[in-house]
Formats: sequence, structure tokens, C-alpha cells
Amino acid sequence: MVLITMAPRTKYDTIAEIAKRRGFFWPSFEIYGGMSGFTTYGDLGTKLKRNVEQLWKEYFVRRQGFLEIEAPVINPERVFVASGHLENFKEYSSECSQCGNSFRADHLIEDKTGMENVEAMGGDAIKRLMVEHKIRCPRCGGELNEPELFLTMFKTEIGATGGEVGYLRPETAQAMFLNYKRGITHAREKLPFALVQSSKVARNEISPRRGMLRLREFTIMELELFFDPENSACPWYDEVKDTVIRLYTEEMEAKEIKEPKIISVEEAVNQGLILTEWQGYFMGLSQKFISALGVSEELQRFRAHLPDERAHYSSQTYDHEVRLDTWGWIEASGCAYRTNFDLKNHQESSGQNMEVLREDGTRFVPHVVEPSYGLDRLVYLTMENSYDRNQKAKRNIFRFPKELAPYQVAVFPLVTKDGIEEKAQEVRDLLLKKGFWVVYDTGGSIGRRYARVDEIGVPLAVAVDYTTKDKDILTIRDRDTWKQVSLHLKDLPVALDDYFKGEKEFHELGEKVE
Amino acid sequence: MVLITMAPRTKYDTIAEIAKRRGFFWPSFEIYGGMSGFTTYGDLGTKLKRNVEQLWKEYFVRRQGFLEIEAPVINPERVFVASGHLENFKEYSSECSQCGNSFRADHLIEDKTGMENVEAMGGDAIKRLMVEHKIRCPRCGGELNEPELFLTMFKTEIGATGGEVGYLRPETAQAMFLNYKRGITHAREKLPFALVQSSKVARNEISPRRGMLRLREFTIMELELFFDPENSACPWYDEVKDTVIRLYTEEMEAKEIKEPKIISVEEAVNQGLILTEWQGYFMGLSQKFISALGVSEELQRFRAHLPDERAHYSSQTYDHEVRLDTWGWIEASGCAYRTNFDLKNHQESSGQNMEVLREDGTRFVPHVVEPSYGLDRLVYLTMENSYDRNQKAKRNIFRFPKELAPYQVAVFPLVTKDGIEEKAQEVRDLLLKKGFWVVYDTGGSIGRRYARVDEIGVPLAVAVDYTTKDKDILTIRDRDTWKQVSLHLKDLPVALDDYFKGEKEFHELGEKVE
Repeated sequence: MVLITMAPRTKYDTIAEIAKRRGFFWPSFEIYGGMSGFTTYGDLGTKLKRNVEQLWKEYFVRRQGFLEIEAPVINPERVFVASGHLENFKEYSSECSQCGNSFRADHLIEDKTGMENVEAMGGDAIKRLMVEHKIRCPRCGGELNEPELFLTMFKTEIGATGGEVGYLRPETAQAMFLNYKRGITHAREKLPFALVQSSKVARNEISPRRGMLRLREFTIMELELFFDPENSACPWYDEVKDTVIRLYTEEMEAKEIKEPKIISVEEAVNQGLILTEWQGYFMGLSQKFISALGVSEELQRFRAHLPDERAHYSSQTYDHEVRLDTWGWIEASGCAYRTNFDLKNHQESSGQNMEVLREDGTRFVPHVVEPSYGLDRLVYLTMENSYDRNQKAKRNIFRFPKELAPYQVAVFPLVTKDGIEEKAQEVRDLLLKKGFWVVYDTGGSIGRRYARVDEIGVPLAVAVDYTTKDKDILTIRDRDTWKQVSLHLKDLPVALDDYFKGEKEFHELGEKVE
Repeated sequence: MVLITMAPRTKYDTIAEIAKRRGFFWPSFEIYGGMSGFTTYGDLGTKLKRNVEQLWKEYFVRRQGFLEIEAPVINPERVFVASGHLENFKEYSSECSQCGNSFRADHLIEDKTGMENVEAMGGDAIKRLMVEHKIRCPRCGGELNEPELFLTMFKTEIGATGGEVGYLRPETAQAMFLNYKRGITHAREKLPFALVQSSKVARNEISPRRGMLRLREFTIMELELFFDPENSACPWYDEVKDTVIRLYTEEMEAKEIKEPKIISVEEAVNQGLILTEWQGYFMGLSQKFISALGVSEELQRFRAHLPDERAHYSSQTYDHEVRLDTWGWIEASGCAYRTNFDLKNHQESSGQNMEVLREDGTRFVPHVVEPSYGLDRLVYLTMENSYDRNQKAKRNIFRFPKELAPYQVAVFPLVTKDGIEEKAQEVRDLLLKKGFWVVYDTGGSIGRRYARVDEIGVPLAVAVDYTTKDKDILTIRDRDTWKQVSLHLKDLPVALDDYFKGEKEFHELGEKVE
């Protein structure tokens, strides 16, 4: 008898199993043996991702009138020379002398010792710790070579043989700096303004792990807010200044204080814990946004980077962290105060003047605050936070906020005879015509069909039966309470519209069904 | 005196000038000297592109309930070995022995001789024509080396040194075949179903030209419809079968017939000019979609590929062509009947069974029809077809279909004193709250402000004046007719909603203003 020891099933495993089976996401290139660090979104995942992105734009773009851009993923080398990425975008990698696999040295140390954020300790410490802790290959147990810096950008060549070296961008921010001069013209030379990009990036991770949380190719949503450091007032500050956040300042981090400071955005800015009003605004807005994905405030916190953890361009960075069941606190977003580091850099490298004229005649290079989000992580954390298991009914339910659900409404004929199916198709076609995302399902008992749409998080399901055929009366069923209301077919489109716009609650959509 | 001869200004030049100045699109990496084949979208272009994509999904995805996917741009080499791309995705390139620049040989021949579609003639003919026509370097006049095949995929390496070779995909279709087995599971094992992807691709063009029409990095919208060749009925065929199209069949192409066959989709399918009902459906739908971008039917035609022009996987391909002012007929879309070529190929390479079981117990590998669109081209052709010049008013106007306009409504305070600006801000905030994309502008005379929003195609502009402040009465002005109607502020959101949903015409939104 063979005893098989299985790793405990994590929440991530549970979500990933449903994701694969139902079509949210799964590992790429499966039929050719796979390749770690790449994910493929199915129908539900593609739609969920789009809805999360749209919601983000509702919070961060449309209402403020910020300017969107979309720039190439492939960039010529000179861009990354100027930005410093060619010099700095590197990780310590250790190769196994036996099996030839490479691993990120800081991750190996973290796994062995339980230490955190080893990356920030620098190369000498990493090399020393590898030896001290006698770290060997996690794949085959072989001896590991001394860690070496490895450039984690994907390299390519643009044009025919002897063309120019290019890289896939590892973030989108540089495009906002490269196009800043066009941007400020389109913003009619007025500060503050922002350039926003939601687009693909790629990082050649040495040994990607944690599935959806560390991909080699992923989507970033970044915003560069350009402002005059002598006038850093944010016009929308009032909307967030009373928002209470959980803060770990640099000082608290340095002292390893475990309890967060619970403080309003305004107090944190006034006490100088957050350096500018713009950072305060975006941090407050970020908490509202992440909450709208279904993450409760208790599972959110803002943690300052220590100076040696911060990127070279930043004078202050707060990570907006979310607590996941499987991995604990992970970064959902970063909010960096980049000062005028990048624009000055590009001003020097390109010879283009990046200055703005004040009314008093003085000139300055604008400062930048940057909130940045990994969209694929947001998709995962939305799924984890929406996931529920009804043990009694043995049923998985994704309780997605209704703005995010991949499909909005299901239509089920009770039976497929006596003209009921034709009636149901009429209802489906009406809802499609009105612009809803509709699931139509005739297979199996109505209970099974409810279970299937619960598992993909469809908020409402409409049942069509003999009463519908005879009197145009329908039943709508709520995913979360399993309660039902009935209403007339002619009132259905407006009722659904009101519901999805948030103007009516479920129980207001019709007569209660007992 | 120096005489400067300028090339005649083309329509493309005109559009590109406005595009750059106002923020639709412009060449990438400008401040670092540029790099041909890459474009950057500004705020208006990003929004226009998204709206064109959304409209496409309204036509091709949502109503049919087709399944979306999103797969990586970077793929390991083994995928392209299996798909045949590593072998076939090549062009003949000729390098200048003097300046070292490389050029696509077929394009050089076309430019010199006026011949069309030289690519399809094959390598021997290309080499012969280069010599016969004594073609020299278009850059420096130097001698060109004999054309050689050049792989036009971007190459990279995945993982640390000694990792696996990868390429950026040049199209998205392979992902649909790679994930077909998951797809058919999510479609509950029922044919027909489709997998759809709108995502980035990259082609390492040797010498890109024609700006937005031939980019090295671009977005493709592709749909793979899987069906049983013994049952190729399309359930939505009735919606398009009477659509009259302009057709150039293979036979007509071979005979170089210049006048198109004007024929309904149904007749063309019945006469065998279009091989399957599914192709007929997508071709008819394509004409409706391209028309919805503002392109008249006279500027559209469907042209069959000749056997030597067709890709190796196709038994019939029709290009949906649109006539542009600058370049004549260009491909807006291709509709290919790929049979079961790709799935059989991947079945052999991967060892995975791709067959489906019929009710009668027989098994088969599904056939595929594929409509495919280059989104960036659609953005450009939408702009060209929407562009108008009012010579009298010396004004550019983009008459975008209202579903596509980057911004929906402008709000202008007549003056910025006497509380008019505060009232205008109240109107702006109301419209933002209701979800509209709003331009707010206080700069210069109201005439100048109308001119500015005409040039970026904002369909409606709301003027706020003393009557608004005193009586809540506003004026809305129509971009296309410059007519005005007045209405009460409380009726504004519903009026705009009705207008953008197509439920009311402009003149129905309020009282006519003389």
C-alpha cells in the first residue's frame, strides 16, 4: 500500500479548481506541457477582468476627466537606458549546478528562513544568507551557484537582422513620462492633470510562483498625476479626507510595530505621515475602490516602504495591502510619490524641456504621484473575497458585487415543452436587445441550473413557466438570498436596469413570492 | 532661392495632424527619435478604440453568447512549431549593401512596378523581379542583396539564461485552438460555439509603412466558430441573408473582372460562391458592423483570395475591404474557412483528442470559420469616414457615430461670473454622476469652444447661461446640424440617455431654439 501525502488544500487551490472547470482562468499552454508564469482567461475571467477594469476607471478616470493613453509594450533599448531600467531592473538569481534550473535567491532565503523582504537587503546580504543557511536547489537538492544579477526584462530585436535591441516594458509608467509633453498640451497646459494607462506589461520572472499573483505577462493600471509641488491641493480631497485607514508608517515599520495606526486620511496628511494631499486622495480612493470589489476594510492596510525597500525614484511609497487566505498580506496597489525624478531624468536624456511656467514667471518640472494596480491580482482577490460555500446545499457561490458579475441574468424555461421554451427565448431575446449579458440554460432540473449560475456568480435568474406563457408573469430569483419576486414581463427590463444601476434593491423589483 | 517640393498632402496626413494635435494617436518614442511601426494612443484615441471594440462585441459576441478568452502574447516556441508559424511566418527581405537598411522585397517591387500582391507570387518570382526591374535601395540608391526569407515574429527568451525560446504571437487564433478543449467543456460539449479574443499581437515587420495600417504591435479581434461540417446551419442566418454585398469571387479575380457581383448573402451561399452559411453570416454581419462605423456600403467590398494568396490553412478566404482616400482598397477584415486544419494539426502535435461525438455515434474534428479584424485599422477608417471639413467656418468636424464618440457631451458656462460657472459645474457633476463622458471647458468664446469639441467629435454640447441660473433652462447644441433645443435641467439626464440609446432623435430632446 502506497501512502500519498497531499499538501493541505488552500483557498487558492479551491478557487483555481473552479476557475479552471468553469472558465475563469487556467495555466497557459496546457496541451503543450505548460509554462509557469502565464495564465489564460476564459469567458468568465475575461468578462470579470473587464468589469474590474471598468470599475477602476469609474473611480480613477471618468469622474476626474483624467487622460487615458495606450503605448506599446515593445520599446527600443534607449528608452530603458534613459529610465534606468536597463541598469536597475534586476534580481539575484541562483542556478543549480546539477539540474540547471534557476531560482530567485531572495525567495529561496525567505522560504528557508521565514524572513521577509530579503530583496531589500541587497546583494551582499543575499549572497551571505545563501551560504549561511546552506540553501540548496529546491527542485533536485543540488548545489546552487553564487547568486548573480539577472535582468528581468524580456529582450527582443526590432527590425531585420542587425536591427535595434528592444525590451518588453515591465511597467507602463515610462510611457506617461515619454508622452508627458503631448499630454500637457492636450490638457491645455494646465496642472494638475493625469495620464492613465491600463495595458499589458511583461517581466521575465526567474521562477514565478503564487499563480495569478506573480505572472510573467500581466495587465497594469497606472496613473501618473502631475502637479505643482507648491500647490498640491487636490480638488476632490473632500470626498476622501474623512476615510479612516489602517496605516503602518516608515517609523512604525522600522520599529516593527504590529498594530496599525487607525487614522483618517486628513489627519495622516496633516501629521506628515502621508507626504502630499494627492497621495492622501489616492489612498482614500483606493480603499473605497478595493472595498467595492467586495474586500472588507479589516482585510486592508497601507504599509510604507522603508528607504532601502523603495524604488530609486520614490520619496515615499505606501503599499495598499489586502489579506488573502492563502498568502496573508499581499500588495494590491502601490502609491508612490515619485517627485520630479522621472521627468528630470527624461529631460536630461532627451534634451526636451519638461518645465512648466508659473503665473509668477518661475519655472519648474512637475512632481508626480502614482497609484498603480496589478489587474490580474485584483481579479483573483475579487474572486477570493466573493467566494462562498453553502455546505448544506454543497454549492459554491461567487457573491460578486453586481457591477462585476460576468453575466447579469440567467433565463430558464421550467420545461422545454408546451411552448414554454419559446416563451423563454422571447424573454432572453428581449433582455439581449436591452443590452444585458444573459445566460440561457435548458439543461437539467431547475435546481441544478440555479446551482450552475450560483457557481459563476450570476446575480439574478428569471424562471419562465406556465404562468409566464399564459399571463406574462415571471419569477426572478436572487443569488444571495435565494428569495424570489414575481413581476410582469413588460416591467422586466426597467426593473433590471434599476437593479444594476443601484436604484432599487432586489425586494423592490416585484411582488414577494412566498 | 531654394525650391522645396512637397509631397501632396493626403487625407491620411490631414487626419494624422489632427490626431497628434488633439490626442488621438501619434508615433511612439518621439522624444527619443521615434521607431517606425509603433503608435501611441492619446486620450481620445484610447476611448475611440475602446468604443469600436465594444461595438464589435455588440455585433459579434454578446448577442450570440460566444465565449471570450484572453491568452498570453508571449508563447513558447513549441506552440509555433506545432502551428507551422516557425516554418511559414516569413517574408522576403532585401538588405542594402551600402546603408545596411532592410526592406520587404515584394513591397519594393510593387512600388517600382505598380504590380499588386507580389507576395503571393513566391520567392523565385520575387528574386527574378528584383533583378529584372533593377531595384535599388529606396533610402540611399545602393545595391540590394538577393532577397532572403526573414522570420517576422519577435523572438525572446523565457526564464533565466538557457531558458526556453519564445515568440510574441503574430495573431490570436492559435490560442483559441490551444484552448479549444477547455472551450468546448465550458460550452457544455455543444456545437456550434465560438471562442473570441480581442488582444495584442506583434509582427516584426521589416520596413513598416502606411502608419496606423501596418504596425509592429497592434490589436486583433478574432473569432473562431467551431461547427459540424455536416450541420453548418447558423441560427442567426435570417438576420443577414438578405444583405446585399459586393462580391469578387475567386473566378472573377482570376479573370480580373473589375465590376463586382452585387448579390445577397443567401444567393451567394446558394450558388456556392461562399462555401458555408457561417461564412455568409459573418460576411453579412461584417458589412452591418463596418457600416455602423460610418462607412457607406459603396466603399465596401468582399474579395476572394486566389489559391496562391490564401494561407496554408484556408479553403476559402474573403477579405472585407474598405476604400480609403489615400491608399485605395485596404483589408478591414478577413473571413477564412479554415476547415479542421488547425485542430487536426494540434491533435497530432499534442496527442490530445480534439474529436466530437455525433448523436449517431460517429466522431469528427470540428470545422472552423474565422472572421478577423485589425482594431487599429478600424480606428483609422472610422476617423477618415467621420472626418469633415467645414470650409466656410474653417473647421474640422469628426462626425463619429454617437456610440463611438470619445466624449458624449460638453458643458460650457457662457461666462465665468455671476454664478454661471458654479451652475455649469453643477450640470457637469450631475452628468458625471449619471455616467456620461463629459468635457468641461471655460476657455475663450463659446464659438471657439464649440469649434474645439466639433474637432474631437463630441455629439452634444450644453450651454449654461443666465436663463439656466434663473430658471434651470439649458440649451443643447447638435454637432452635426448646429441646431439647438432647450429643456429643463431636471429632464437633461433622461434626454441624453434616450439620445445615446437611439430612442430619440436630437430634435425630440427639447424645444426648438430659433
